[in-house]
Amino acid sequence: MTPQRVTLITLGVADLATSRAFYGRLGWVEHGQSQSGVAFYQMQGAVLGLFDVNELAADQGRPGVTLGVGAVTLAQNYATEAEVDAAFAAALEAGGQALRMPEKVFWGGYSGYWADPDGHVWELAMNPFWPLADDGSLTLPG
Amino acid sequence: MTPQRVTLITLGVADLATSRAFYGRLGWVEHGQSQSGVAFYQMQGAVLGLFDVNELAADQGRPGVTLGVGAVTLAQNYATEAEVDAAFAAALEAGGQALRMPEKVFWGGYSGYWADPDGHVWELAMNPFWPLADDGSLTLPG
Repeated sequence: MTPQRVTLITLGVADLATSRAFYGRLGWVEHGQSQSGVAFYQMQGAVLGLFDVNELAADQGRPGVTLGVGAVTLAQNYATEAEVDAAFAAALEAGGQALRMPEKVFWGGYSGYWADPDGHVWELAMNPFWPLADDGSLTLPG
Repeated sequence: MTPQRVTLITLGVADLATSRAFYGRLGWVEHGQSQSGVAFYQMQGAVLGLFDVNELAADQGRPGVTLGVGAVTLAQNYATEAEVDAAFAAALEAGGQALRMPEKVFWGGYSGYWADPDGHVWELAMNPFWPLADDGSLTLPG
């Protein structure tokens, strides 16, 4: 048995300085736990980390890692379409690459996708069926 | 500006039935929000989703997605080394592939890596410098 938990999401990055600057432009503030070789950002009850992709591969015990394949999506939900649009514009302004502009989608919400400098895919979404708590956390309804 | 938040982590999977069964063997319980084509699991303030990788690629607006490259690590932290060992054994028992058995690591903790049926990489760790809250959430110290 394992708990239903993710504590830390670590993104492998080609150049840590580039990625630190990028997430800084997104408005993310590094936590004091960050070190020269790894950047940490506090989220709601969990942490995002940035780490050199070759070191990540070595740490995982594999010869190498391929960036930019999009096998994982990290989604940020927002309360309104306007908030999605504003955050999406901010991501492009910061240097994110638009994959799909925000639009109404088949499941009744509103979403768009962009990629960070290493091809990590972020989805920005408004889901009217999944209200967020005041702290931005999500507890599924029903 | 974007908030420091991940609401939903979606893993692209080659065969949803296989992956549902696998996470079920890990002891994860699907939330009632799940549908035939997508599985959702409530975590602490966020959600993990499993979704067909070709549908994920289409949703991301890209021609395809490559699984198993390990560019992202999803870490679960535990309070003790024994808890890491027990969870790691449970993951292998469920059919997870060991990448690196748990061991003491250079940063002062204890960690190992395993991969799920699609090559998504999970790290199980005990970090003595990062105590977990009772609900399993992590607020970085200092």
